[in-house]
Amino acid sequence: MSRPPFTPTIASLPKLVPFVGPEALERARGRPFSARLGANESIFGSSPKAVAAMREAAAENWKYSDPENFELRSAIADHHGVAIENVVVGEGIDGLLGLTCTMFLTPGAHVVTTDGAYPTFNFHVRAHGGVLDLVPMHDMREDVPRLIESAKALSARMLYVSNPNNPMGSWWPAEAMTQFIGALAPETLLILDEAYVETAPEGTAPPIDISNPQVVHYRTFSKAYGLAGARIGYAIGESSVIEAFDKVRNHYGINRVGQIGALAAIRDQAYLRDAVGAIAAARERIAAIASANGLSPLPSAANFVAIDCGRDAAFAEHVLKALLDRDVFVRKPIAKGIDHCIRVSCGRDEDLDVFAKALPAAIEDARRLS
Amino acid sequence: MSRPPFTPTIASLPKLVPFVGPEALERARGRPFSARLGANESIFGSSPKAVAAMREAAAENWKYSDPENFELRSAIADHHGVAIENVVVGEGIDGLLGLTCTMFLTPGAHVVTTDGAYPTFNFHVRAHGGVLDLVPMHDMREDVPRLIESAKALSARMLYVSNPNNPMGSWWPAEAMTQFIGALAPETLLILDEAYVETAPEGTAPPIDISNPQVVHYRTFSKAYGLAGARIGYAIGESSVIEAFDKVRNHYGINRVGQIGALAAIRDQAYLRDAVGAIAAARERIAAIASANGLSPLPSAANFVAIDCGRDAAFAEHVLKALLDRDVFVRKPIAKGIDHCIRVSCGRDEDLDVFAKALPAAIEDARRLS
Repeated sequence: MSRPPFTPTIASLPKLVPFVGPEALERARGRPFSARLGANESIFGSSPKAVAAMREAAAENWKYSDPENFELRSAIADHHGVAIENVVVGEGIDGLLGLTCTMFLTPGAHVVTTDGAYPTFNFHVRAHGGVLDLVPMHDMREDVPRLIESAKALSARMLYVSNPNNPMGSWWPAEAMTQFIGALAPETLLILDEAYVETAPEGTAPPIDISNPQVVHYRTFSKAYGLAGARIGYAIGESSVIEAFDKVRNHYGINRVGQIGALAAIRDQAYLRDAVGAIAAARERIAAIASANGLSPLPSAANFVAIDCGRDAAFAEHVLKALLDRDVFVRKPIAKGIDHCIRVSCGRDEDLDVFAKALPAAIEDARRLS
Repeated sequence: MSRPPFTPTIASLPKLVPFVGPEALERARGRPFSARLGANESIFGSSPKAVAAMREAAAENWKYSDPENFELRSAIADHHGVAIENVVVGEGIDGLLGLTCTMFLTPGAHVVTTDGAYPTFNFHVRAHGGVLDLVPMHDMREDVPRLIESAKALSARMLYVSNPNNPMGSWWPAEAMTQFIGALAPETLLILDEAYVETAPEGTAPPIDISNPQVVHYRTFSKAYGLAGARIGYAIGESSVIEAFDKVRNHYGINRVGQIGALAAIRDQAYLRDAVGAIAAARERIAAIASANGLSPLPSAANFVAIDCGRDAAFAEHVLKALLDRDVFVRKPIAKGIDHCIRVSCGRDEDLDVFAKALPAAIEDARRLS
């Protein structure tokens, strides 16, 4: 029996996984990590009100969730001062990025992004046959002027910008972003990934202009809200763009417990402020630990800190491996120009204690091996 | 500012929603339903062990789930006597159907299914530019011999068969299905939707032949397992087909609470047997209520009963509306040849009491209006 043929796009794709999860690493190692500081989760957790609502919802999980996500979208719309028609909820930003590709990309379409920015976006673009054009970072920040130029030159269908950027934590102020948005070519959709914007300085998020069909803002409950496991992201944009998601999305794709948890979380802005404060304090402490060990922490607007290990990529890779060996789960950038760094997610004091204890020996290992 | 262009497929699609959820109906009515018997959920709920595991998981929902779904896939593989490489987990069968379309459909490809079978499958096919060829039911059952013929004549890329069928509850025995599988044209993938197979008579599910890349089996935790809100489905097939899902799936799309709940549920087969027993008893009672009111219940292998209202589609529509007016959420088939029926999901005694009480008056209303 022969296999029915895959589409040409799928047949031509290599086997590719965006990120190996910590669980897979733990299975390979045969033991758990002591500190989970690699996936930019919020170890501070979600609002206790969200936890209570999710516990309560467990017994009712025989029900499908509301496929319109009406209450959650209403709360999100209120929070951002837009209408419910400007909001779509998806299975994390990841899910929404995939749908956006389905809506706008045909095989061969050009897509511009930053070399070393979000791999899952690139994964979805490739699965849709899109052609990726990668612009290097400039000073470890997304080179937005050059991204805009490159998108213009290629008549790109999509331009991906994350603000703040992952994995560097760097960011642009709102005024600069607004100026860039005005410079977009008319055929290009700007995918503005703001997954980390809640932890950024005031004045980082550009105003959301729901009259502009060229910009879609992507937000998530996975980071500052502390609900990565819930898989709830949302996109905000002009209503005809948002409405088109309904033509392609999995209408019953949102899990009921997560839907209920996210609703409770967005209603508890006091908790969010506390969490953002704890994240800011953890950033300071990660920076202090790095500095105390002779490494250079980068300024960060996100819930992690990129640390320049001061030598080449091979050295940073050795530091990373030595940390993993010491049961500290962290990750590192792999693109040229930023691959001399490691990336450490914010955590509680006890998590950072583990990191602080492991780092000196990890650096020593790396020095010996380099 | 103009909108960047959608793909031709998306631009040509009408606004289309597979199913309106009961929550949207409740919002429009301004009051809740008394009995939720329209979405083929399992009101009996999931295993208490699954509920306990999900409650426990709520506080840890700051973690992403394992993107490989390793433990869950291992348990599913063990349960079915296949290898983990033969199993992929997705956001319900709905999510997996969409991915299957991405893997196999290019615009213009032919897809064969039954008129009145699963609308969400058709939704995904259209979103991928596929051309649907609808074969009518024969005796209110999927006409599998004619489906196979039609797929052959059209060199269809995909053939969709559900066994048992939703919305009729009808089914084919395993031997017939195995024979049909042997008759497939080599270019056609058989999408065998077995969402309801746990509640079917012994001998309904054909053996899973993981050496055959032409057949993918779709299963779910939404029906007999009582975890519709968890959005966990899975597909079983030949390893090269299953591996290709990794090229297109949202690797972090599965919510952590649902993943943990599904694992506990599949490990509690004793509870599943009890639930299947309760569902069978509810089927009997729905049939008895229908008969007592002069309607004709159809034999069902699923967790619902289709009821022939004995007159035309308009009459059945009136019965449906009168039930909704009496706070009983049920649905009805809309395709020709089956549109004289309503469909009632299994429920607890108290749910079916509400239905039993509302039905005579609903029929009276319908008679008056017809």
